[in-house]
Amino acid sequence: MVEQAERFVPEPPDPSPEDVESLDVWGFRDTAFRARPDGVVELTGSRYPLCGEELAEVLPWVQRKIHPDVSPHDLNPSRYPPPIPLPRRHEAFLDEVRKLLPEDHIREDPEVRLRHGHGHTQAEMYAIKYAQLPRVPDLVVYPSEEAQVVSLVEAAHRHDVCLIPYGGGTNVTDALRCPESEARCIVSVDLSRLNRILWVDPTNHMACIQAGAVGRHIVEQLARYGFTLGHEPDSIEFSTLGGWIATHASGMKKNRYGNIEDLVLDVTVVTARGVLERSGVAPRESIGVGDARRWVFGSEGSFGIVTKAVVKIFPLPEVQEYGSIIFPDLAAGVDFLHQITRRSTPPASVRLVDNLQFQLSQMLKGRRRGAKALKSAVEKWFVTKVKGFDPERMTACTLVFEGSREEVAAQRKAVYSTAKRFGGMKGGGENGERGYQLTFGIAYLRDWIMNHYLLGESFETSVSWSQALELCENVKRRIHEEHAARRLPGKPMVMCRVTQVYETGVCVYFYFGYYFKGVEDPSRVYAEIEHAARDEVLRSGGSLSHHHGVGKLRRGFLPRIHSPGTLEWTRQIKAAVDPANVFGVANQNLTDA
Amino acid sequence: MVEQAERFVPEPPDPSPEDVESLDVWGFRDTAFRARPDGVVELTGSRYPLCGEELAEVLPWVQRKIHPDVSPHDLNPSRYPPPIPLPRRHEAFLDEVRKLLPEDHIREDPEVRLRHGHGHTQAEMYAIKYAQLPRVPDLVVYPSEEAQVVSLVEAAHRHDVCLIPYGGGTNVTDALRCPESEARCIVSVDLSRLNRILWVDPTNHMACIQAGAVGRHIVEQLARYGFTLGHEPDSIEFSTLGGWIATHASGMKKNRYGNIEDLVLDVTVVTARGVLERSGVAPRESIGVGDARRWVFGSEGSFGIVTKAVVKIFPLPEVQEYGSIIFPDLAAGVDFLHQITRRSTPPASVRLVDNLQFQLSQMLKGRRRGAKALKSAVEKWFVTKVKGFDPERMTACTLVFEGSREEVAAQRKAVYSTAKRFGGMKGGGENGERGYQLTFGIAYLRDWIMNHYLLGESFETSVSWSQALELCENVKRRIHEEHAARRLPGKPMVMCRVTQVYETGVCVYFYFGYYFKGVEDPSRVYAEIEHAARDEVLRSGGSLSHHHGVGKLRRGFLPRIHSPGTLEWTRQIKAAVDPANVFGVANQNLTDA
Repeated sequence: MVEQAERFVPEPPDPSPEDVESLDVWGFRDTAFRARPDGVVELTGSRYPLCGEELAEVLPWVQRKIHPDVSPHDLNPSRYPPPIPLPRRHEAFLDEVRKLLPEDHIREDPEVRLRHGHGHTQAEMYAIKYAQLPRVPDLVVYPSEEAQVVSLVEAAHRHDVCLIPYGGGTNVTDALRCPESEARCIVSVDLSRLNRILWVDPTNHMACIQAGAVGRHIVEQLARYGFTLGHEPDSIEFSTLGGWIATHASGMKKNRYGNIEDLVLDVTVVTARGVLERSGVAPRESIGVGDARRWVFGSEGSFGIVTKAVVKIFPLPEVQEYGSIIFPDLAAGVDFLHQITRRSTPPASVRLVDNLQFQLSQMLKGRRRGAKALKSAVEKWFVTKVKGFDPERMTACTLVFEGSREEVAAQRKAVYSTAKRFGGMKGGGENGERGYQLTFGIAYLRDWIMNHYLLGESFETSVSWSQALELCENVKRRIHEEHAARRLPGKPMVMCRVTQVYETGVCVYFYFGYYFKGVEDPSRVYAEIEHAARDEVLRSGGSLSHHHGVGKLRRGFLPRIHSPGTLEWTRQIKAAVDPANVFGVANQNLTDA
Repeated sequence: MVEQAERFVPEPPDPSPEDVESLDVWGFRDTAFRARPDGVVELTGSRYPLCGEELAEVLPWVQRKIHPDVSPHDLNPSRYPPPIPLPRRHEAFLDEVRKLLPEDHIREDPEVRLRHGHGHTQAEMYAIKYAQLPRVPDLVVYPSEEAQVVSLVEAAHRHDVCLIPYGGGTNVTDALRCPESEARCIVSVDLSRLNRILWVDPTNHMACIQAGAVGRHIVEQLARYGFTLGHEPDSIEFSTLGGWIATHASGMKKNRYGNIEDLVLDVTVVTARGVLERSGVAPRESIGVGDARRWVFGSEGSFGIVTKAVVKIFPLPEVQEYGSIIFPDLAAGVDFLHQITRRSTPPASVRLVDNLQFQLSQMLKGRRRGAKALKSAVEKWFVTKVKGFDPERMTACTLVFEGSREEVAAQRKAVYSTAKRFGGMKGGGENGERGYQLTFGIAYLRDWIMNHYLLGESFETSVSWSQALELCENVKRRIHEEHAARRLPGKPMVMCRVTQVYETGVCVYFYFGYYFKGVEDPSRVYAEIEHAARDEVLRSGGSLSHHHGVGKLRRGFLPRIHSPGTLEWTRQIKAAVDPANVFGVANQNLTDA
């Protein structure tokens, strides 16, 4: 008999009172970059390895690479909060809501409404700090039970109210932005109170989790019982299970655990035509077109509200180990990645940064003193002088191995022997861990640099192996051309990294930043250049999105990737399942809005 | 630079003229079981390892286990062909078709129409041999170009004709059966001429294959270039890529290569609202709800005609190796399977047969003479007398390892050491290969035993680890009860095997057979008992289907697994994308038909 352990219900999440999130910038309120008057940059707080380090080289590097005028003394202060539109109240609906929800689950405060009307695109963050958002939700509700969600949807239908589900608010596709033309009352349905793990089945490695559960809480709660979901998007601190499903998310360790579609076994969705749910869940099924998962992955709030999901869970790995490798250039690194997908099972995470991003990561090392400074200097000397790596061309790969001792040993062996063939040199576990963890700290950079007249942001694609390098070159060249054509100040900064590997190709992230002092409507200019970059991505064989989704930012490109038949299908389906357009968030091209 | 090899176009498939399929029974025309007057059973032809063996023990075993009257001399001869309904001709549509297709791509012959009106359920096969099918297609067309499919669908729309796509005709869910109430002209669209591999991309491990390509041809063609698709359903000799997509199929080696949803990167579908297609395909995308794959997996002909797909391909494995293990009983075998999903990567295929199926496989060994007979006797003595395995309880597991030398070595080590912990004993590679290959030979049993008043068939489910054993017991008990309650002759035979393992559970196949001489309407009685078995499957936590799909056979159970909201969604979606019900095959509960 399979050893049976009973299902159990974990304790509710117990967030620290210090875990307050900022309304006006990315992340936790206690964490922010700042430039001291002497030019040294610091990350406040103590959450991240980077916190408290003295980053002396960042500013000089930015001055060299982007614009010499960037300075601690030349500030572009945030004017947050911006003017916030008055709510369009719908009294009859509000009366119903008051019967459904306690008073403190209903919010009308301007800044709360504002926060629910955007994600984290540069345009949105620029707007809330230096301009305004023309339309934001008129009301925010916080249901704490699935039945309340059902009642809310029914009431919205009756009262012709528009509902927009809200998870962690971390999307980067304008997916939460309210359609300006929406004349109805817009109600944001914040799922943060639906945040429980309802059960864990330790025998069959499944858990049922409410959609509003935040990534970091899921990690903590499951870890107490020896499990992990294994889904680690860059936004894991703030994004939610429901958001991962709605955007069709990918996690950094997908090589071991799979992407969200591999992890979710069942979903419950409250729609305008009733609740989509199942009487049970079994491993892999062929039950026709009624499997609700297929309707909601990537639906971006347009079809309904995901309230919970049954997911696979995994025992915490016996071994977790970091590693890093440096390569002479990007091509060698890509060759290496290609080869490890051909000859072995890649480690849980393998990420390759290009030269510029490698340089940035070096700049984000704190001042070293004494023995550490010496060690660092010797390392640098060894790499560049003895081994002959060119500091202006070399690239680096970070590795996370997870699994049993045997699995990790086999992967380690395969990875490092392959790396050698492509001129790679081991960079050590410490650098690997730093590189992997840097993700969470550098997320705070975007809002900080805006204070210094710098706009920067990332965008991703996926592309076949044979087109990957050319795509990277094309996109970089195109951004340089667009920057030059507009006679923008300084130089653009464009970097990239390969964040995921597949049998058929890779996911590539680009980072583009520019200095905007004196530029008229800098956020629009940024958007234009990003749009041109996406055009170049598509021309170069890249996809519209690897895991960020479409939202409103990329929907204009849909006719380039889909046939007219497909576009018509999606619109007909939307009209069929939500004829009153209750879920009127207007992502993709599903409605005329 | 990633080493680039150009895309190439393989030669068209070159089927042997001997590969003629039977119209009235499963499989190739040159292959059939038969019982000699002396009671020895043989499989004719030379296609399978079983062919030409003298199977002396089968009939006596069947007499013992099912009914003593089963005999080579008591025959229930097939009356194929049955009366076949006259075609309802639609002259105007036929005129259009004649403009689109050459004369020999249009068939009206009764037996061809009949063959396109069924798959391989016991009810269908019984009907064509001993009764009749009340409604079959009125016309069969064989488009050889995608554009012809588009024109056919447009013409069908204009002329109010019902289209039913046809792949290999191997489904076991009544999915091809024509709705009796369908008053329109029914046209079967046979995709067998859309059977080309359009291109192979050896660098990015992708291929574009037309939907009518048959599994065995795909295998042969890709193997010439060192590749495999890795998708091996039991029906691979006859089923098609399009059929795999439409039924949401699973292959025996899914542990290594994935199920069909893991292999298909893009599909082209001709629908009543235009063609669903993409401008390109990238590794993993998050492009919203317009990814056509999600609409067609498991759509069973109700949404349109799949014409081609881009799939992942894999280099042929460095090593392929068979293995087998015997266990004292079913529980030990299941425990072993559970453990190998927990501690390691399971081999490409792992299948566990219960005791009765193990016995059957032993009966399907040919007479051994001389040294071989001695070896066989000694083995049996060793297993049962020395090792103490009970012949009435022992079970067996067949293994297929595929991968690099290192991977296979690691899997082999993990598998056999785990097996030992659960009382398993190595049974050797020869038995493993025989067990694995037996699948293809025993597919011919069903039609042969019908000649001897035996009705038998398989059905599958998936279920969590913790419920697996109990489900097997419940279903077996229920079938015995149902058999007894009807006072049917002899004893029912019910066997099962576990054919797939997942982190969360398994796929279980059941085989049920009974002796029907003297039973009124034996096929209906079989269906009733199978229906009761499915009821028991669902009560015991099993799924409606692991990979066979729903069709018409299981659609009555949909309300037990889906919420009313889900059922309403699927009907609304069908009505939205195919308002005239051009694709009127009436599978699942998508229309009122």
